[in-house]
Amino acid sequence: MHIVVTNCNTTQEMTEEIVRGARAAAGPGTTVTGLTPAWGPESAEGWLDSYLSAAAVLDTLRTYEGPRDAVVMAGFGEHGREGARELVDVPVVDITEAAAHLACLLGRRYGVVTTLERSRGQIEDSLYAAGVAQNCAAVVGTGLGVLDLGDVQRTQEAFVTAAERAREAGAEVLVLGCAGMTGLQRAVGEKLDLPVVDGVAAAVKLAESLVSLGLRTSRVGSYARPLPKRRVWGAGRG
Amino acid sequence: MHIVVTNCNTTQEMTEEIVRGARAAAGPGTTVTGLTPAWGPESAEGWLDSYLSAAAVLDTLRTYEGPRDAVVMAGFGEHGREGARELVDVPVVDITEAAAHLACLLGRRYGVVTTLERSRGQIEDSLYAAGVAQNCAAVVGTGLGVLDLGDVQRTQEAFVTAAERAREAGAEVLVLGCAGMTGLQRAVGEKLDLPVVDGVAAAVKLAESLVSLGLRTSRVGSYARPLPKRRVWGAGRG
Amino acid sequence: MHIVVTNCNTTQEMTEEIVRGARAAAGPGTTVTGLTPAWGPESAEGWLDSYLSAAAVLDTLRTYEGPRDAVVMAGFGEHGREGARELVDVPVVDITEAAAHLACLLGRRYGVVTTLERSRGQIEDSLYAAGVAQNCAAVVGTGLGVLDLGDVQRTQEAFVTAAERAREAGAEVLVLGCAGMTGLQRAVGEKLDLPVVDGVAAAVKLAESLVSLGLRTSRVGSYARPLPKRRVWGAGRG
Amino acid sequence: MHIVVTNCNTTQEMTEEIVRGARAAAGPGTTVTGLTPAWGPESAEGWLDSYLSAAAVLDTLRTYEGPRDAVVMAGFGEHGREGARELVDVPVVDITEAAAHLACLLGRRYGVVTTLERSRGQIEDSLYAAGVAQNCAAVVGTGLGVLDLGDVQRTQEAFVTAAERAREAGAEVLVLGCAGMTGLQRAVGEKLDLPVVDGVAAAVKLAESLVSLGLRTSRVGSYARPLPKRRVWGAGRG
Amino acid sequence: MHIVVTNCNTTQEMTEEIVRGARAAAGPGTTVTGLTPAWGPESAEGWLDSYLSAAAVLDTLRTYEGPRDAVVMAGFGEHGREGARELVDVPVVDITEAAAHLACLLGRRYGVVTTLERSRGQIEDSLYAAGVAQNCAAVVGTGLGVLDLGDVQRTQEAFVTAAERAREAGAEVLVLGCAGMTGLQRAVGEKLDLPVVDGVAAAVKLAESLVSLGLRTSRVGSYARPLPKRRVWGAGRG
Amino acid sequence: MHIVVTNCNTTQEMTEEIVRGARAAAGPGTTVTGLTPAWGPESAEGWLDSYLSAAAVLDTLRTYEGPRDAVVMAGFGEHGREGARELVDVPVVDITEAAAHLACLLGRRYGVVTTLERSRGQIEDSLYAAGVAQNCAAVVGTGLGVLDLGDVQRTQEAFVTAAERAREAGAEVLVLGCAGMTGLQRAVGEKLDLPVVDGVAAAVKLAESLVSLGLRTSRVGSYARPLPKRRVWGAGRG
Repeated sequence: MHIVVTNCNTTQEMTEEIVRGARAAAGPGTTVTGLTPAWGPESAEGWLDSYLSAAAVLDTLRTYEGPRDAVVMAGFGEHGREGARELVDVPVVDITEAAAHLACLLGRRYGVVTTLERSRGQIEDSLYAAGVAQNCAAVVGTGLGVLDLGDVQRTQEAFVTAAERAREAGAEVLVLGCAGMTGLQRAVGEKLDLPVVDGVAAAVKLAESLVSLGLRTSRVGSYARPLPKRRVWGAGRG
Repeated sequence: MHIVVTNCNTTQEMTEEIVRGARAAAGPGTTVTGLTPAWGPESAEGWLDSYLSAAAVLDTLRTYEGPRDAVVMAGFGEHGREGARELVDVPVVDITEAAAHLACLLGRRYGVVTTLERSRGQIEDSLYAAGVAQNCAAVVGTGLGVLDLGDVQRTQEAFVTAAERAREAGAEVLVLGCAGMTGLQRAVGEKLDLPVVDGVAAAVKLAESLVSLGLRTSRVGSYARPLPKRRVWGAGRG
Repeated sequence: MHIVVTNCNTTQEMTEEIVRGARAAAGPGTTVTGLTPAWGPESAEGWLDSYLSAAAVLDTLRTYEGPRDAVVMAGFGEHGREGARELVDVPVVDITEAAAHLACLLGRRYGVVTTLERSRGQIEDSLYAAGVAQNCAAVVGTGLGVLDLGDVQRTQEAFVTAAERAREAGAEVLVLGCAGMTGLQRAVGEKLDLPVVDGVAAAVKLAESLVSLGLRTSRVGSYARPLPKRRVWGAGRG
Repeated sequence: MHIVVTNCNTTQEMTEEIVRGARAAAGPGTTVTGLTPAWGPESAEGWLDSYLSAAAVLDTLRTYEGPRDAVVMAGFGEHGREGARELVDVPVVDITEAAAHLACLLGRRYGVVTTLERSRGQIEDSLYAAGVAQNCAAVVGTGLGVLDLGDVQRTQEAFVTAAERAREAGAEVLVLGCAGMTGLQRAVGEKLDLPVVDGVAAAVKLAESLVSLGLRTSRVGSYARPLPKRRVWGAGRG
Repeated sequence: MHIVVTNCNTTQEMTEEIVRGARAAAGPGTTVTGLTPAWGPESAEGWLDSYLSAAAVLDTLRTYEGPRDAVVMAGFGEHGREGARELVDVPVVDITEAAAHLACLLGRRYGVVTTLERSRGQIEDSLYAAGVAQNCAAVVGTGLGVLDLGDVQRTQEAFVTAAERAREAGAEVLVLGCAGMTGLQRAVGEKLDLPVVDGVAAAVKLAESLVSLGLRTSRVGSYARPLPKRRVWGAGRG
Repeated sequence: MHIVVTNCNTTQEMTEEIVRGARAAAGPGTTVTGLTPAWGPESAEGWLDSYLSAAAVLDTLRTYEGPRDAVVMAGFGEHGREGARELVDVPVVDITEAAAHLACLLGRRYGVVTTLERSRGQIEDSLYAAGVAQNCAAVVGTGLGVLDLGDVQRTQEAFVTAAERAREAGAEVLVLGCAGMTGLQRAVGEKLDLPVVDGVAAAVKLAESLVSLGLRTSRVGSYARPLPKRRVWGAGRG
């Protein structure tokens, strides 16, 4: 089975980190291919970045010609999911919803710990649209930007602090609200003795599940195929 | 990996049908064991049956001494799920929530097609408690009892009719709201050209996913271990 | 009028305490009979206990042969209510919903003060299913177990502390989230100058109200009579 | 126990009809006094009437000098309830909320059958504010005005038709959304084999319940006593 | 264009302050006329006052014979809005809803800062009925009464403190929950660096918008014209 | 005052039609400039188009160097709104939310009539995020594509039919769910005797209102300025 994982930004290192996480989660017969958009933001932090990222990721999926049995979209809280469902003929799983789906199975309420506080609104909206917001007790930011996650010690501390706030708000399970944070999962989980769900891993398992059950996106209603028409994919300006 | 699947009633044939469905969905390294409660109702239709079933299934899980890496609870809309999460140390997935989780990934709204109209309330409540009710467009009954599903032709027609009502209510994906209906899945799906999710298959894949990611039920808050105390499991009366 | 009050656990002393509270609330022409399940948990704390209790209480009601004009179910946040409505031909009132119904008449928001924090989820779900969760500002646990309520001084202090948290969350009325705490009602109410509703008393008055108005459970839809079928009520194992 | 029942309009015949219903529901030791506002609308149909009625009823309660242990407000869906709770020191029960509270105990969803379609919004808002809207499946109008209810045959037919629409929308219990319709209750209930709750009767029983349990409106927060200030109660113009 | 602004109380000075605010917001071609009810409360604080105010304001609008193209109702959280929509043939905008509508355009969540804590419930209900409660993060009281707002320094401090609480609850925009506080708007906004919306100004702009687009209240359904009938507008007692 | 109106697609004729509508609604001192994205879809129908459109519109706003006091985004149900709020320093009003805001002032429930049924989900999500979904009774599609609206007779009939369905679902006010349909507004409104709100006109009035009151997007929280970073705006591929 071929799973294509799309990074939501143009930073190649992040794609690689995401692919590592995806491969660690994938079953024996699954091949993972990471795609880095040729354009878009170098990191997605806020709505402007998210909409730019959505178009770039859709363009990436549109022009990708390799094999795929499913698509995993690895931007936590980022836009584009429904467009990808229209575009491709294979199942599409976004890491935001995927983490929430598995988290719901592990506790009565879950919490999301993410990077910047400004991402909270996007994440809440994304969980709502995916139909899994009800049992989310809180989305808490750490104050760290996506590209600041290099300092491991500081990052862990910030995530543990945010996770404690989520637990006080009622979270019994944590979701890491950012792609490419595999190391954090263990550290935070051990510190708080709570299950911690990583979106990339969750999405890979859900994608494998859908493929192995032969389930595909419904074409009735919301996710009908895009109508044929003239579309221009960007001006190519920096 | 060992998955234990619990039937919600005492009808052995139904356990076997459920186990067949579970095995068809399971991955290569997964062993499926079906458990039939030694007591409870011969079929679960309504709240009285459901509460009796819940206690019987919990007793079954409590006294089971074989291997298990995960539990799948195969009673659609039946009670007991949260009690099982307290009781066992492995992930527990109920087929009601499992089908809804996968359905949410395949369309913007899903619908549930079930047996008797009287089960609607239980199913709605179960989806709500699981945190996945929001995108459910409708729960529609066929008017057939659990033990009437033998007549294949009549059953298919009744399910297709109910499925059309769900689609009119906005469902883009269907969930079969009953265990042991593998054959129906194909028939209804082809007739309406909609993806159809079977709860048993969905739950097996989700259970495998949780196990392979090393995720376990949170012990903080709702699903803490049962307190040690005196409990008597039934009077043994007919 | 005969009101049957079911304890949710096997502890006879608690049944007696509940019956005392029920009798204090009952009108002049009302007789109260307390039933203690012959099996089940010695106290109900958590979902496992609650489902076991639900089956045991239903079995108790099923095999009870004395007179009854209404049933009061005296397990706060415990399951079984809807099954009892199917089973018996007289009105059924659960103390959880009863307390909430009366509390809604006394203030714009109410709060529930209960024993263990782990019961919060069950209580929230029970209020939701009963249709009276909307104006509940908070469910707060005291950290005391059901069988620890003997130490009056400590219990009062713990309940007052929890009640203050509920009031800060917006509660203008308090509900005692546990059966058999008649003494607490006065102590907590006086300390905080808030009305305090006891579920057993509330349920008795609501049951009397329904009976005197000639109102019975609807048999259309959810609470139709149980279908005739083979049911085995427990294995009788300890 | 003295229960004061306030009509929401100036039509004396309606007060008498309401008092008849209240007395039929009241317990042996309860005295019912009906109050007709000295001003306001001759019937309350729509928001303008409802706000005028609210002020007139509050003025009536303010200037009433007889005994009272509880107040029943007999305007279905009409305003004023919260103001009365501030004003008087005894429990206040509105027939809208009262009917809904009892209806919730009799089925999983209830429906309201009322006079004019234009009242639907007020009733929905009133149920929502009272905290009991969740399980309301539908509010259905008959198209008959309050003062057209004299034609018994036509009224019954219109209510049965509306009740059937409510049942199709999921109602398992009916609420008569108008004061002074005691006769209808039996006719509609028998025709549809559903329990039918009359608000006046329900409110009397709830008021008696609160009084006999010694429960009073909370003075903390929303329903604190009105502040002393200059208020002029109307211009006395026609 | 003629906009009639109704004060919700009988205090003439407040009408003048409101009219000043309305005129400052009005476009070049707009004339503002302030109306002070001839009866009602001298200030509206709580439900009793609010219902009395609603009737008095409706009586004022009913008997006003001057020109009007739109009505602005300047009582924050006060009742009467829907009755005015029935009564007059021109658009009606209430300052509560108006402030919320504009606030929604300026941030993802808004907060309301009002006078007494006891007004919170009315404001929440009013926002809900108007359909704009969803993005309200908090309604916070300052503890100051309407007629205490004279002490500018103390008032500003109290509002800034309350505004900070709203911001902590997630508000990105503030709404001043009281008429006649134009000066506060600048002070609070500068202190917290948040946009602050004044209801009177917002309502004037929305009223002008509706008038200039030729939009009028729908007469289908909820806001049909009042039925002709006998109504008496108050007893004229003090 | 300068209002910039962005078309959501690359069809110049549609920009012109939108600008005509905007100018008809604008006040005397307002200048309207229409912007057509240099890239993106020729019409926006579905999520893929919508995300592509969002990025293209943001790029258009980013590179626009003329004067602006406010931005009106003229894509009904299309994405991008929140990104524009981050990007520009002037108020941003989207026609979807604008129409809903004004509609809420004219009736208790409103309905949206749009082009293709597949747009329903996007519109519902957009209204929800804007905080004005609660009073939306229905979003109804006509089955006509954006570029099929040329046939006036057929278009009017299709819209009237859809509008009747919205009215049956409870809508008392209609919103035209598509930009550039000024003619339709009168035709549909007259046929059904309901107020009809056009999003472009509504957005222009709201934008003028915000500008004239000196209100700007909050920079606290969700809509903080975009972080400085490397972004590439498209590959320029067809």
